[in-house]
Amino acid sequence: MRPRADDTLAQRLARSTSVRSEGAALRTADVAGWLAERARAHHFRVERIPLDALDSWFFAADTGNLHHRTGRFFSVEGLDVSLDEGAIRRWQQPIIRQPEVGILGILAKEFDGVLHFLMQAKMEPGNPNLLQLSPTVQATRSNYTGAHRGTPVKYLEYFTDRSRGLVLTDVLQSEHGSWFYRKSNRNIVVEAVDHVPVDDDFCWLTLGQIGELLRRDNVVNMDARTVLACCPVAPAEPGALHTDAELLSWFTVERSRHDVAVERVPLAGIDEWERGEHSIGRADGRYFRLVAVGVEAGNREVTGWSQPLFEPTSTGVAAFLVRRLAGVPHLLVQAKVEAGFLDTVELAPTVQCTPENWTHLPEPQRPCFLDVVHAADPDRIRYAAVHSEEGGRFLNAESNYLFVEADEAQAPLDPPTGFRWATPGQLNNLAQHGHYLNVQARTLLSCLNAGTVRLDHGV
Amino acid sequence: MRPRADDTLAQRLARSTSVRSEGAALRTADVAGWLAERARAHHFRVERIPLDALDSWFFAADTGNLHHRTGRFFSVEGLDVSLDEGAIRRWQQPIIRQPEVGILGILAKEFDGVLHFLMQAKMEPGNPNLLQLSPTVQATRSNYTGAHRGTPVKYLEYFTDRSRGLVLTDVLQSEHGSWFYRKSNRNIVVEAVDHVPVDDDFCWLTLGQIGELLRRDNVVNMDARTVLACCPVAPAEPGALHTDAELLSWFTVERSRHDVAVERVPLAGIDEWERGEHSIGRADGRYFRLVAVGVEAGNREVTGWSQPLFEPTSTGVAAFLVRRLAGVPHLLVQAKVEAGFLDTVELAPTVQCTPENWTHLPEPQRPCFLDVVHAADPDRIRYAAVHSEEGGRFLNAESNYLFVEADEAQAPLDPPTGFRWATPGQLNNLAQHGHYLNVQARTLLSCLNAGTVRLDHGV
Repeated sequence: MRPRADDTLAQRLARSTSVRSEGAALRTADVAGWLAERARAHHFRVERIPLDALDSWFFAADTGNLHHRTGRFFSVEGLDVSLDEGAIRRWQQPIIRQPEVGILGILAKEFDGVLHFLMQAKMEPGNPNLLQLSPTVQATRSNYTGAHRGTPVKYLEYFTDRSRGLVLTDVLQSEHGSWFYRKSNRNIVVEAVDHVPVDDDFCWLTLGQIGELLRRDNVVNMDARTVLACCPVAPAEPGALHTDAELLSWFTVERSRHDVAVERVPLAGIDEWERGEHSIGRADGRYFRLVAVGVEAGNREVTGWSQPLFEPTSTGVAAFLVRRLAGVPHLLVQAKVEAGFLDTVELAPTVQCTPENWTHLPEPQRPCFLDVVHAADPDRIRYAAVHSEEGGRFLNAESNYLFVEADEAQAPLDPPTGFRWATPGQLNNLAQHGHYLNVQARTLLSCLNAGTVRLDHGV
Repeated sequence: MRPRADDTLAQRLARSTSVRSEGAALRTADVAGWLAERARAHHFRVERIPLDALDSWFFAADTGNLHHRTGRFFSVEGLDVSLDEGAIRRWQQPIIRQPEVGILGILAKEFDGVLHFLMQAKMEPGNPNLLQLSPTVQATRSNYTGAHRGTPVKYLEYFTDRSRGLVLTDVLQSEHGSWFYRKSNRNIVVEAVDHVPVDDDFCWLTLGQIGELLRRDNVVNMDARTVLACCPVAPAEPGALHTDAELLSWFTVERSRHDVAVERVPLAGIDEWERGEHSIGRADGRYFRLVAVGVEAGNREVTGWSQPLFEPTSTGVAAFLVRRLAGVPHLLVQAKVEAGFLDTVELAPTVQCTPENWTHLPEPQRPCFLDVVHAADPDRIRYAAVHSEEGGRFLNAESNYLFVEADEAQAPLDPPTGFRWATPGQLNNLAQHGHYLNVQARTLLSCLNAGTVRLDHGV
């Protein structure tokens, strides 16, 4: 018999967040050098190739769907979508289907009473800078059951064998609903009890050190960000605009009220998408392209491969508008429909879109609050950095991530349908459960958990 | 700005649970008489009819699927299921598809400082005794948007207009995964602030009074049971065998580890099911039949209709094995795959099956712990009652619901894969979120919330 919750965990995470300039292994200022050294230590080269040059991948004769010859990893299929609201209510698109649940796991351990997290210097073909700081383990089931006949996944046993550590959080979270069909991954943090040998490409960092690195563009990868967002930091808050019960009730209504009809269809012949030699894309250049790359690598589970990637045609924006009510920060969340979600909506940042995709539409049809973000005075921008999405599936998929201060004129306390004010503590509680917060919201919440931005005082 | 949670709510619910023999409106002993009177006050007659005699319903020429002519309410289609474990790994079956989210809402109000719940005496064609105690509102979107051109749904406005009351809980919960394709309903309790006029078929009862009625067979309907299961009673517990984080982690693993492949297929021609004049069923008589009934009614939104129902061919069992660890009751939950779930597994009672469907298989392939329940000494059975499932979709779908005391030999603390010990408090916390607890588990938890059975002391 034990207490149901570890009351010291939030304090221990807060302590790790407060250690920002030097950890047990490296000074924060030296991390960039260490990453550069790891990049030099390995041969890793990515080049675009024609779709027909994909090795081990084939377009099925009947459907045109793109599959791996083993039937594993993932496939690219077509999706037909009908919605009941919004500027665009019917479309078809390619979508990645990957029914397997992957593991995104970070190993934690206390050194001198401070929690450190074992981060990996990992190259992914889609990263603009190839190498980023990643979770200890980032693996699909095909990876770790050896479908690609490579070397074993390091540290995997901490996440598959419960006796090796103490679980701090372990939750199934969605990935990008615009690009994945009902994909989710386990987001896990396990605290090791015994000595952990540290491999060359790995380094112990505090939450505060990772928080400092989140100020820079394209250093902390998406997989690390989403796991850190799930850490139960439980910020103390004297109150909120809406009670927890009201917030859940609003979410329940939002999830219930939408009619979203999604059908998987053959990739061949979906409306407005055309196959060229190097890509499948749209004539108007919007949204994204399906492309192919060849990879030469020295430190990966396999030493060379080719694969398809989705390449967005423009840079995204993901921004939370922020207000303080009686001193407590509140974020304006959006219950956003994404076609690939398991269940209609998840909570997204106030603004989440690729502005370029909306310029052909008249102003009133463009995303709410995008103008507020675009017009924000620099001194109202509390956080801005460019982060890329998962480099194993997406090529140069960069977005501007922001926290922007707003006032009643820009962001009223009684916002439009589909929007609601919630505190970081309320969202952190929801992050302990799956399918409440989308992956873009989780990137921004990771910046709060890691102390990159503090919202409890004004500019 | 308000406190995030109403700290007094659990106490107020406990107080309502403690009031068991007499409420503001009726003595508990008089409820049976009131229900009988309500039954007499209305004309309600159900008869079986041939499938071809269904009015306003048709079998589609191409698929054989059964639809309402409006395209609303629900349809009956085919489902093809493949699992990666268990005695039966591949089958086809009819399934009810009803994409709309319904409302199961109970209105609450304090009288003399005690919360009462406005319960409805409601007839449903599938109930063995026709009339049962139901939520204040029990309506599909087709009901309350007037698809059947009947009278308005009483008290609906309390659940659609937030200004009418205070939300105590509001959560999307699954329905039967064996019979419904990804169906969920809003389970809501709203506390009214102003005077509420009480209609003839409605009555205010305390949680304790409803708890007493749950001792009897077929009095409190499924819809009422599942809503009551979601009440945040938050029982005080000094500890648990597994921490909350460990329990969630185990659930995440269970949800991740199963490969469940489910495909909607045409109802016509599914393997082993045959259409007769009065039913679609299996030659071996197992599982259930699709049947049709004609209904004459006086107090419903419409005065007569016919509809299809699923009729199980035998009585089910749903039982929690119980142990007390350091005085804290623990229930043995099962992470159960049901083909119609939105996401692979939900937590079910220790045993949930229809025993008759398993007699053709050798003992080792039958459901775990069924023998323990069957062989239990009467003095180990802490609760036993027969309850039927939703009478708007299921005909005479009765199960024996039980809590059974067990010991280490019968139910070890380290149980087989797929099972885990959890406390009522842990499960009550999970019930505040969707898709953790299946509908059978929620029926049994409603008996704890309403004080029908107390597990904190032995027999």
